Amino acid sequence: MTKTKQRGLTPQHEDFSAWYNEVVYKADLADLSPVRGSIIVKPYGYAIWENIQRHLDAMFKATGHENLYFPLLIPTSFFEREADHVEGFSPELAVVTHAGGKALEEPLAIRPTSETIIGEAYSKWIQSYRDLPLLYNQWCNVLRWELRTRPFLRTTEFLWQEGHTAHATAEEAMAETRQMLEIYAEFAERYGALPVFRGEKTPGERFAGAQNTYTIEAMMRDGKALQAGTSHYMGDNFARAFNITFNDVNNQQAFVHTTSWGLSWRFIGALIMTHGDDKGLILPPPLAPHQVVVVPIYRADDDAARAAVLAEVGKLHAALKDAGVRVKVDDRQGMSPGWKFNEWEQKGVPLRLELGPKDLEAGAALLADRLSGEKRPVKLANLAQTLPDELERFQAALFERARDFRDAHIREVHTLEEFREGVEEGFVYATHCGDADSERWLQEHTKATARCVPFDGPSAEGSTCVHTGKPSGYPRKVIFGKAY
Amino acid sequence: MTKTKQRGLTPQHEDFSAWYNEVVYKADLADLSPVRGSIIVKPYGYAIWENIQRHLDAMFKATGHENLYFPLLIPTSFFEREADHVEGFSPELAVVTHAGGKALEEPLAIRPTSETIIGEAYSKWIQSYRDLPLLYNQWCNVLRWELRTRPFLRTTEFLWQEGHTAHATAEEAMAETRQMLEIYAEFAERYGALPVFRGEKTPGERFAGAQNTYTIEAMMRDGKALQAGTSHYMGDNFARAFNITFNDVNNQQAFVHTTSWGLSWRFIGALIMTHGDDKGLILPPPLAPHQVVVVPIYRADDDAARAAVLAEVGKLHAALKDAGVRVKVDDRQGMSPGWKFNEWEQKGVPLRLELGPKDLEAGAALLADRLSGEKRPVKLANLAQTLPDELERFQAALFERARDFRDAHIREVHTLEEFREGVEEGFVYATHCGDADSERWLQEHTKATARCVPFDGPSAEGSTCVHTGKPSGYPRKVIFGKAY
Ligand SMILES: [Zn+2]
Ligand SMILES: [Zn+2]
Repeated sequence: MTKTKQRGLTPQHEDFSAWYNEVVYKADLADLSPVRGSIIVKPYGYAIWENIQRHLDAMFKATGHENLYFPLLIPTSFFEREADHVEGFSPELAVVTHAGGKALEEPLAIRPTSETIIGEAYSKWIQSYRDLPLLYNQWCNVLRWELRTRPFLRTTEFLWQEGHTAHATAEEAMAETRQMLEIYAEFAERYGALPVFRGEKTPGERFAGAQNTYTIEAMMRDGKALQAGTSHYMGDNFARAFNITFNDVNNQQAFVHTTSWGLSWRFIGALIMTHGDDKGLILPPPLAPHQVVVVPIYRADDDAARAAVLAEVGKLHAALKDAGVRVKVDDRQGMSPGWKFNEWEQKGVPLRLELGPKDLEAGAALLADRLSGEKRPVKLANLAQTLPDELERFQAALFERARDFRDAHIREVHTLEEFREGVEEGFVYATHCGDADSERWLQEHTKATARCVPFDGPSAEGSTCVHTGKPSGYPRKVIFGKAY
Repeated sequence: MTKTKQRGLTPQHEDFSAWYNEVVYKADLADLSPVRGSIIVKPYGYAIWENIQRHLDAMFKATGHENLYFPLLIPTSFFEREADHVEGFSPELAVVTHAGGKALEEPLAIRPTSETIIGEAYSKWIQSYRDLPLLYNQWCNVLRWELRTRPFLRTTEFLWQEGHTAHATAEEAMAETRQMLEIYAEFAERYGALPVFRGEKTPGERFAGAQNTYTIEAMMRDGKALQAGTSHYMGDNFARAFNITFNDVNNQQAFVHTTSWGLSWRFIGALIMTHGDDKGLILPPPLAPHQVVVVPIYRADDDAARAAVLAEVGKLHAALKDAGVRVKVDDRQGMSPGWKFNEWEQKGVPLRLELGPKDLEAGAALLADRLSGEKRPVKLANLAQTLPDELERFQAALFERARDFRDAHIREVHTLEEFREGVEEGFVYATHCGDADSERWLQEHTKATARCVPFDGPSAEGSTCVHTGKPSGYPRKVIFGKAY
């Protein structure tokens, strides 16, 4: 409502980080909160999260998962049962020591993730192979006390989903782990228009307590990597820590094999930084709160024209809604059309329809495309039929643009010098020996980390580590990049 | 899966409270958690909550409300800004004193409700009358450290929605308060089949910080009351406490008027105790996870019959799903049909279809009604068309049964003796003077509390207080009852 929002953004090439923060606040996705490191997600940002939830949740349910809800507070002693897990999470715990006016006997941690309390429950719920698999998910808030925070990307509290499954065999659990990674990848590409690399994390980048961590990695427009979703195979680590056993078909007691997988509102950060430009956000239609904004145009002193335009806009609104399009009519008074155009461009609405008296006469409207910036007339008569196709076309173009950008910013490197240059521009494929010390050295000296060993990509056969010269530790070249 | 679930429940008339706990756990709605006073909501219970959310959320959005998300943690100093609010909530706060391995400078409370942190934000977001109204809601978890807890009814952590709106005038805020109460009432009656009394709380029962609290009150099958949703008019209390001002149309600075309104998973408790019987749950079709369960019937040794029955069941499943019916096929092996019938009756599935070889020949299935207990044959051919009607009929019958029960358990009383007798059976309408001491005396001596001054109901004109003999403090007789 205030004019200040209309000021332009810092250009991406000047200061990408400043651009990001500005666009988050100016597009009204979020606001700062009085509690350090946490944000208020405003309606426009939350509507994106609701769309993410709706599509992902449908994919989870279509693959047999059910939602449930575990308590927020977890006894701190639970974390100590799995050695890697406590090492990974205890530095970030927020702890409730007092409640109801009294000191608690045992401090309770706010969940940073729920493997422990869920493991404890699974040990009670599972007795027989007939109780398996358990395919559960929860949508909830979690808290990790981070020192450096950024809206959506790293906040002390964040919203996410965490899936937790238990299986009779290692093979089944691994298949689930890989299935859920593929669901994340499909979701990212189909709904988010985010091309992602699917791959496995190196041992140093695994989730605390996991035997294997799989990831989808997206490239932001500054060439940096963002981990957009992860799926973990726990083996029987948590089963042993929480004594989750079952009687198998031969009536032998065995440990279950578990998985967990999560995707958070970080995904909104990925959308912003993959698609946005100097004008602001560009949102993929399947996740955009408004897919189309209609701006009626008339002279302030011409009441007849105004009535005629608004009547037609009303009809259009109804027809588009019926066609399943999320349409917003901006009929606010006292603002010029140009001012409105700027606002909705900054907020990344994919398509804009402008409709004035002359358009009415011609039975047409002007369609503006947020991605290409092009404007062209479209017939009003069958707009409800054609607009869904326009949105699909938009989504395809958005995906292609992101994929082209990414493909132009990843290259195979063969020397440390090439590696250093490559990670300044984007990602590199580099043969790596798999040595943890070498991975750390590379991070310290180039700021790049191993993003994943991709499922697809150049083979490492016959090549040697760009850093140590030792033989490759993995079948494929590793993707390295600087990361969020 | 375990046979123990099949044991019967304590009859309601014997020990309603025991019946309640048993049905919660045996119908697999929830489980105990390792943290005192909190529960794990299992998939069957959570699916009810998801249906509640879906319908309510649509009603909120249809009336112009948007969702957003505020942080979980609130500086404890925020609570001290509104005198009644701090008095009401500080005894129940859970407080984070340590995070990230360090003591915090200011302790942070886990939200028991979010008026304070939202008030602080609104003071920044609102400058002009053009920014008003703000019509926001959030779905979230809250925590209140209760001493005596019961699953769904009173748990330290619970899930709910809290709406928070700000308006330019008192009239508008009051209209919003009343509108949201009516939405709760409509939701309860239409989707939950819960007849409710709509009314205003007496001053002693108001929300901490509110000027008026409105409530919907339902009657459980033990005659007790359950407050199923509340809507509060705050006047400018929170606006003054958090300095939420705006420039009005005349450019004069004024305080906004705010409202808040909430409905929690308590509503699941209301469903259980309004509709359930000695066999277990009875769920209203709009909120039931499964509206229809199909049980295929065949002899274990007759593979041909089994294949034929399962083929027909598969077709039926697909047809019912296409018709928008939430249908569950129970094709588990190694359990008798009777065992399955018991399980689904305990879990309150409204309708059951039994389909065996003889039914197949007749082109029919047996339809069993969870409410009436009746079974009758129905034609398979057009079941997808007729079943939605059967579900509507079921819902209407469920509502009528609850309303008849309620109407039979509420009466007008004129003396203290009648009052005492009446609240042992259900609710009473009693004239009350409005004196807080008298209200307390009645609670101490009869365990009944003023549930509400109903919008509709017997006039109090000309009658005097059943307790003090003083003139009525309200235009209508007050509804009293023992409450959850
Ligand atoms: Zn190396
Ligand atoms: Zn009295």
